[in-house]
Amino acid sequence: MNYCQPMAQSSENPRQNLKAAEHDRYAAAGVDIAAGNAAVARYRQILLDTRRPDQLDALGGFAGLFRLPGDGNRALAASTDGVGTKVLIAAELGRYDGVGRDLVNHCVNDILVCNAAPLFFLDYLAVGKLDPAVAAEIVGGCAQACRAHECALLGGETAEMPGIYARDHFDLAGTIVGMVAIDRIPDPESVEPGDAILGLPAIGLHTNGYSLARELISSDELAAPFEAATYADALLAEHPSYYRAVRAIEAVASVKAMAHITGGGLLENVGRTLPPRCKAVFEQRRWSVPPIVAELVRRGALGEEERYRVFNMGIGYTLVVPLNDAEAALAAVPGARVVGWIEARLPEEPQVVIHPLRAQ
Amino acid sequence: MNYCQPMAQSSENPRQNLKAAEHDRYAAAGVDIAAGNAAVARYRQILLDTRRPDQLDALGGFAGLFRLPGDGNRALAASTDGVGTKVLIAAELGRYDGVGRDLVNHCVNDILVCNAAPLFFLDYLAVGKLDPAVAAEIVGGCAQACRAHECALLGGETAEMPGIYARDHFDLAGTIVGMVAIDRIPDPESVEPGDAILGLPAIGLHTNGYSLARELISSDELAAPFEAATYADALLAEHPSYYRAVRAIEAVASVKAMAHITGGGLLENVGRTLPPRCKAVFEQRRWSVPPIVAELVRRGALGEEERYRVFNMGIGYTLVVPLNDAEAALAAVPGARVVGWIEARLPEEPQVVIHPLRAQ
Repeated sequence: MNYCQPMAQSSENPRQNLKAAEHDRYAAAGVDIAAGNAAVARYRQILLDTRRPDQLDALGGFAGLFRLPGDGNRALAASTDGVGTKVLIAAELGRYDGVGRDLVNHCVNDILVCNAAPLFFLDYLAVGKLDPAVAAEIVGGCAQACRAHECALLGGETAEMPGIYARDHFDLAGTIVGMVAIDRIPDPESVEPGDAILGLPAIGLHTNGYSLARELISSDELAAPFEAATYADALLAEHPSYYRAVRAIEAVASVKAMAHITGGGLLENVGRTLPPRCKAVFEQRRWSVPPIVAELVRRGALGEEERYRVFNMGIGYTLVVPLNDAEAALAAVPGARVVGWIEARLPEEPQVVIHPLRAQ
Repeated sequence: MNYCQPMAQSSENPRQNLKAAEHDRYAAAGVDIAAGNAAVARYRQILLDTRRPDQLDALGGFAGLFRLPGDGNRALAASTDGVGTKVLIAAELGRYDGVGRDLVNHCVNDILVCNAAPLFFLDYLAVGKLDPAVAAEIVGGCAQACRAHECALLGGETAEMPGIYARDHFDLAGTIVGMVAIDRIPDPESVEPGDAILGLPAIGLHTNGYSLARELISSDELAAPFEAATYADALLAEHPSYYRAVRAIEAVASVKAMAHITGGGLLENVGRTLPPRCKAVFEQRRWSVPPIVAELVRRGALGEEERYRVFNMGIGYTLVVPLNDAEAALAAVPGARVVGWIEARLPEEPQVVIHPLRAQ
């Protein structure tokens, strides 16, 4: 999981702390969300001890914000991320260029939550056995997504590490740095009951939930047909960038808060940029779940809560706008939908509610 | 290997292109330097296609440089690096905090070559099985080294990836972003024959050559005594930061070029910040080789050239200063030595010569 300083107030929200027992399937697949939360709790103190005067509060923890020295008006936004075990499917199929685009787009979306525009990106590629053609394909994918955002691929590190990675395995992570005018960073305090929540559609798993997906769909099945293509195609569908869609909405609507729906899903990502006095209420019938995600939910018999934490369930990015601006926003971005609204929240209530999700 | 845009002119230098046959031992340990060079050659074209107007030439490729938008005088310097298979020794011994310091110090030194001061750092930690206490120890090590440089630990990513990493294995990488006044970036063109090369001492392998070291020193030997401590202690000796030493030298000397001696050693790192008309001539007797490095050279029966590419051989960082400034520089930093000098170079000559290294 991504961590930034300071942590959001999420630890006070009981819905944001995972109960391991609720996550049987994901935990069985080897990903322990409770351990992740415990690690982040430990990082909190470490990060507080390292805090520098130029740091700004990290809006929801999607990216770190650092005031540009000698410039009172602008901040740098930075985020490091990886593509997770999606790399194992890419390696198995020998389809390498997509993960680079996945990674850059993921990072672009993370700093977009603060409204930052990308300046440059650096990748980290670690391999068991270095094949220059494969490495160039992976880094080339990063470069392609960088170009699409007028972002420099400023450099990177390629490490050959026998003994850590299997011969044909690799890992890919990256860091993006962007810039934002401080007065354009969304202000959670502007969010009010009655605001609309817009959702931008997800096209698959993006970069989350792959350890579970690989358990539920075996290697043998990857080439089998699924929804007019194959399971492999559905699983490798690329993490989209929401940069242009968000810019188009900002041109016609006042955007009060945003969230990138990654690990933890709607339940854990949306609340992080809301004020404690507000909750997000989603209405499940307002959007559709990508077929591959629905298939995984079915195969894994995932509980209603777990599915909304492990997968994005069809929404890749959310924006909170005044209800009056919603129509113009929807017209600006085909595919965007009103997926919920903001309501007043009592202290004991969860910060994210999904109807008709069974009450816990 | 670290790559940045644009590549140094090193491809024109025959000594900088590895002949695989010369690197028997390292290649046998699973690290193929020739494949690394081939990958970097492929990256070159990818990076050129991604180049943005705000990018500056990357001085020797240690860090990427990006002109601060709207500010003609300053640039951001950024570098991504990892600690390599040193993590396997750390994991085996359960000594986790040192690798975080290794990593941050490595990154600090990389941007120091451009004279940049650190602003912030982000880490990437990937594990087979997430143990929150271990993760906190690793990230805590990063934080400690960040604090020592008044650098913010701005955030990071911790990924649990069963299927890629063995249960008790991990990988650690990170990205540093710093800032430098553009007129303070060292200018290779100022380097002249007759200049002195100062060396700052290495205290061990730092973060390079561990795949070979692990072949030459078995797990069973790690606890055995070596030089008043153990092999484990010698192998885990931490990558030092040269930040304060360099600042102290800059206060009394005109620094024309610098190099961080990492993978590729003196032979591949020093030439990258020199103009093609100059060569660096080192005199081996002027410094001592750390005992653990000497032991590895002996055990591996490494050829004279290979040892200078796989290991730093006792010099962690070099600075080129006018001969007249050398005395003041040495007085400013105990441990610094004059280790060589700059000579005029003919086109067919290597850019780095180490006496009395046997002529190739």
